Amino acid sequence: MKSSTATKPAWDRLWLGAHLATMTGGPAYNDRQNPAGVGELRDAALAIKDGRIAWVGSRQQLDNMPWSAANVTLAEGLWITPGLVECHTHLVYGGDRSNEFAARLRGATYEEISRAGGGIVATMRATRTASEDQLLEQSLPRALALAAEGVTTLEIKSGYGLDLDSELKMLRVAQRIGEVTGLAVIKTFLGAHALPPEFMGRQEEYVRHVCDDMLPAVAKARLADAVDVFCERIAFTQEQTRRIFERARELGLPARLHADQLSDGNGGEIAADCGALSADHLEHTSERSLQRMAERGVVAGLLPGAFYYLRETKLPPIERLRELNIPMAVSTDCNPGTSPIASLLTAMNMACVMFRLTAAETLRGVTVNAARALGLAQDRGTLEVGSRADLAIWRLRHPEQLCAEVGVHRPVEIVLANKLKTPR
Amino acid sequence: MKSSTATKPAWDRLWLGAHLATMTGGPAYNDRQNPAGVGELRDAALAIKDGRIAWVGSRQQLDNMPWSAANVTLAEGLWITPGLVECHTHLVYGGDRSNEFAARLRGATYEEISRAGGGIVATMRATRTASEDQLLEQSLPRALALAAEGVTTLEIKSGYGLDLDSELKMLRVAQRIGEVTGLAVIKTFLGAHALPPEFMGRQEEYVRHVCDDMLPAVAKARLADAVDVFCERIAFTQEQTRRIFERARELGLPARLHADQLSDGNGGEIAADCGALSADHLEHTSERSLQRMAERGVVAGLLPGAFYYLRETKLPPIERLRELNIPMAVSTDCNPGTSPIASLLTAMNMACVMFRLTAAETLRGVTVNAARALGLAQDRGTLEVGSRADLAIWRLRHPEQLCAEVGVHRPVEIVLANKLKTPR
Ligand SMILES: [Zn+2]
Ligand SMILES: [Zn+2]
Repeated sequence: MKSSTATKPAWDRLWLGAHLATMTGGPAYNDRQNPAGVGELRDAALAIKDGRIAWVGSRQQLDNMPWSAANVTLAEGLWITPGLVECHTHLVYGGDRSNEFAARLRGATYEEISRAGGGIVATMRATRTASEDQLLEQSLPRALALAAEGVTTLEIKSGYGLDLDSELKMLRVAQRIGEVTGLAVIKTFLGAHALPPEFMGRQEEYVRHVCDDMLPAVAKARLADAVDVFCERIAFTQEQTRRIFERARELGLPARLHADQLSDGNGGEIAADCGALSADHLEHTSERSLQRMAERGVVAGLLPGAFYYLRETKLPPIERLRELNIPMAVSTDCNPGTSPIASLLTAMNMACVMFRLTAAETLRGVTVNAARALGLAQDRGTLEVGSRADLAIWRLRHPEQLCAEVGVHRPVEIVLANKLKTPR
Repeated sequence: MKSSTATKPAWDRLWLGAHLATMTGGPAYNDRQNPAGVGELRDAALAIKDGRIAWVGSRQQLDNMPWSAANVTLAEGLWITPGLVECHTHLVYGGDRSNEFAARLRGATYEEISRAGGGIVATMRATRTASEDQLLEQSLPRALALAAEGVTTLEIKSGYGLDLDSELKMLRVAQRIGEVTGLAVIKTFLGAHALPPEFMGRQEEYVRHVCDDMLPAVAKARLADAVDVFCERIAFTQEQTRRIFERARELGLPARLHADQLSDGNGGEIAADCGALSADHLEHTSERSLQRMAERGVVAGLLPGAFYYLRETKLPPIERLRELNIPMAVSTDCNPGTSPIASLLTAMNMACVMFRLTAAETLRGVTVNAARALGLAQDRGTLEVGSRADLAIWRLRHPEQLCAEVGVHRPVEIVLANKLKTPR
C-alpha cells in the first residue's frame, strides 16, 4: 500500500521506544480487581498533536504504518506516565504554622496554641492581610514544588479567607498560579471550612452568608469549579452541608466533601446524596456511607499526609473500598496545619506505607482516579488518544519506584498541554 | 584608631544581614537541656576565607571594625545554617528493590520474597555485577538528591559487596562521589553487614575473613574512615562485633554500630566499650547500654526512615537520651530495602512527627551532632570561626520550617568548602 501525504498523520512530537503506564484497561479501579495494574505498554510509542495525545501503541505497529512528526525523541529506557493529577490541596495561604508544629513538640497543648492565636485562625489572619501579589508569592513555591514532581493538573481550595473578598482573592491567586505555571488549576470554593471569629456563636448566620452571598458571588465571578465543605463536629453540621451543596447545585457547581476525618458524620452518604465528585479523608466512614458511595460512583479521596501528621491510628476502610470497587484517589491535602506537604510523591509513598495501597492503586490514585475525583476523567489521567498532552517522562526501571523510593525521582521532562498549541 | 591594611581582614566572601543558626551555645545536646535552641544570631554577618569561616557576629559589630571582602552578598531575610551532615547512609548500591516493596503490598510474605531471591542478596548480586562506573552512575543521583537539600558532608557505607573486591569497589565509588560532587564523603567499611551466601553455615569463617583479609586490605588502600557492624540476631553476634572492632582499632579505624534495631543486643554497651563514635537505631536499647553510652560520649544515631518503612511501634528511648545528655544525630539510613529515602529533610520531618524530637533537636541532629557522630565536630556542624565553609543558605522565616514542612524547601545557595580555595 502506498502511503500518501494526505493519509499520513503529521504529529507535533513523537516519543519512540518508551514504556508507557497508560492507566487504562479494566474498570480502572483498585488493584485486586484490576490485573491491568498501571496498563503497561512496553517498547511503545506515543505521539501528540495540537495539545492532545494523537497516537498510542507499540513501536512495532508504528513500523507498519506511515507517519511523520516534527520532532522525534528516542526514549528507550524512559517511562511515560500521564501528568500527575493532584486533586485536593489548600496550598494558597499566607504565613506558615511551623512555629505551632515546633511548639507542640516542645510540649504545648492544642489549647495553649489556640489561646495564643494559633490554628486555622492564624492562617486566616495571614491570608486576609496579605495582598493578592503577596499571597501569590507565598503560595507559588508550593505549586512549583508539586509541578517539579510531574503534577500537571492541580486542585486548589479557598477557605482561609472566610469573608467574601478574601475568598475571592484566594481563588484569583489560584487562577494566577495556573496562568504563571501552565498547570491546569481547578478551583474549589471552601467558604465552609471554619467559622470565622467575627461569626462566633452565629454559625447559622455564617452558613446563610455562604449560601446567599458568597456562593452566588463566586459563581458569578466564575472563580470556582466546585464547592467543598468541612463536615465535622468541629466544623459544619450534616444539615448545613446539605444546604450548601443544594445551593451549589442550583448554581451549577459540583460538590466535593471533607468527610468523616475525625468522626463518622455520614459524610460518604451526604456526598452520594448530593452527587459529589469525591468524599475525602474517610477514616471513620460507615459501611452504609460506603455502600452509598459505591452506588453513586463517588471517588474516595485518600489523604495519608494528614493521617501521618496527626499520628492517627484509625485507617480508612481500604479493603472495603476495594471490595466495593470505589475508585481511590491519593493526594497531599497540602495545607499549613495538618499536612504541610508539597510533594505528591511523598504522599504516594505514605499511601503505600501507611494505608497499604498497592503501588498500582497509588499510581492510579494520582492519575486516572484523581482525574475522576475532579470530574475530568474524560480528558486526562490516562494515556489515550484524545487525552490532553499532559505527560511526565521518567528515567525508571518501573513506575513502582515512584511509590517505593522517596526524594530521588523527578521527571526528566514534563509536557504541559497548556504550553503547547491550544488543544482542539 | 586608624585601621591599616595590615590589620584589616580581607575576606573572600561576606554575607550581610542574614540570620544565622550557628548551632553553638550550651552543651549542644538536646532541646530541654539546651535553651540555646539552634544558636540563633539575627541580623548578623558571616565571612569566609580560604575555605573556612573567618568571622561570625552581629552586623552591628561589623559596623565598628575595619574589614574588606572580595564579594559581599546582601542576605537580609535569608537564614544560614551549617551545611547539613548526613551521617548514616548505604546509598552506593546496584539495582533497586521497588519490586519487593510492591510485592509486599500485594500480599507477598518476606519468606516468599526471600525465596524468589529478594532481600539484601538481591542488592548484593546487583552490586557485585555492576562495574565501578555503573555503580557510580546508579548511586550518584541519590547523593545529588541529598546535596540539593543542603547536605555537604555525607557518610557512605559499604556492605553490599560482601567480598573483598566488591567492598573495595563500593568504597572507591563512594570516594568518586566525593570527587564528582565536591561533598565531603566519609567512607565506612561495613563488610559485616550480612553473611554472603557463599559463606552459608560458615559465619565464623566469614568473620575471620573480614578481620584477617578484608579489614587490612581496606585499611591499606585507605578507603575507609571507620568500620561498622550490623549487630543483631539475624546478622552478627555481640562477640563477633567486638572482635571486628578490636581488629579495626589495631588498624586505627574508629567504630560505628548498627545497634539494637530489632532486639536488645547490648549494642549501646558494645559501642561504648569499643569507643565507637555512634550507635545507631537504638529502638530496643537497654538502660544499661544508655548509661554506658552517656559515660563514653557515644552519639545516638536516630533513623526514623527505617522505623517508618518497617511500621515499627517501639520508639527509641528519646526521653532517656535527653535525660542522659546523649547527643542525638538524625539521618536517612538511605538504603534500598528498609529506608529508600534520599531526602534528609524528609527524615528530619519524620524525626519530629514519629520520634517527637523537637525542631531544634532535629536541626542539631543533622549538623553539630551528626558531625560529632562522624568524629568531625572540630571543624563542621556549627557556624564558628575556623569551621569549614560548608554552608546552606535558605529563604525561610525560621529554620523550624525545615522540620515542619515537606517537599518545598531547597537552599537558595550551597557553599562547599571543597569547591573553594583549599582550606588552610
Ligand atoms: Zn483538606
Ligand atoms: Zn544502616
